[in-house]
Amino acid sequence: MEKVNLAQKLALFSEPWSPRVVADVNDCQVKLARLRGEFVWHRHEHEDELFLVIEGRFRMDFRDRQVWLEQGELMVVPRGVEHRPVAEQEAQVLLVEPRGTLNTGNVREARTVDRPERI
Amino acid sequence: MEKVNLAQKLALFSEPWSPRVVADVNDCQVKLARLRGEFVWHRHEHEDELFLVIEGRFRMDFRDRQVWLEQGELMVVPRGVEHRPVAEQEAQVLLVEPRGTLNTGNVREARTVDRPERI
Repeated sequence: MEKVNLAQKLALFSEPWSPRVVADVNDCQVKLARLRGEFVWHRHEHEDELFLVIEGRFRMDFRDRQVWLEQGELMVVPRGVEHRPVAEQEAQVLLVEPRGTLNTGNVREARTVDRPERI
Repeated sequence: MEKVNLAQKLALFSEPWSPRVVADVNDCQVKLARLRGEFVWHRHEHEDELFLVIEGRFRMDFRDRQVWLEQGELMVVPRGVEHRPVAEQEAQVLLVEPRGTLNTGNVREARTVDRPERI
């Protein structure tokens, strides 16, 4: 039961699209990630995914619209909804999602992380 | 599926210790609260509770220690653990906890909120 300083944790890694686990809360995990460039279109069949922008901004693409998320803004992507995060400049993001949620959802590709590191 | 701007939502209310619901994610809700003064000692029997400081700072008292939480820091209070938030100056906090979690946990008192408002 230790507190987590988000900036200190984010300083521990630099790779984009590689979420790190920083806390557990109920059936969910809290993760930190750096977004840079364009991610893969994917969906999570059974998991809602919360994105909160800690630093920077990014665009969440849906099949029918785009949403820009700024620092201090959050959004929940419900299960089943295809999405693609795109960050023209790097964004630092906090995620809340069920334990075991795969970063690329229903897709496997080079950036898929099966066991996110705990930091 | 709308984005949530935390500062805009926090501007909608001023009462301390009265969490507002701003999003649902899996079995949890995301709430915003203003902490001001000393809350009641309590615990949540079955719920872990995440606190993330958006603005200001506050102290989380446990029976055997105290933890200061600053802006950009989070902490998870596990189920069953007695705690008491104390804010000498107002703190603005984001909470993640299971739907139905009572703000005063196992205690009923004047500040108990049975149905937190959704904003």
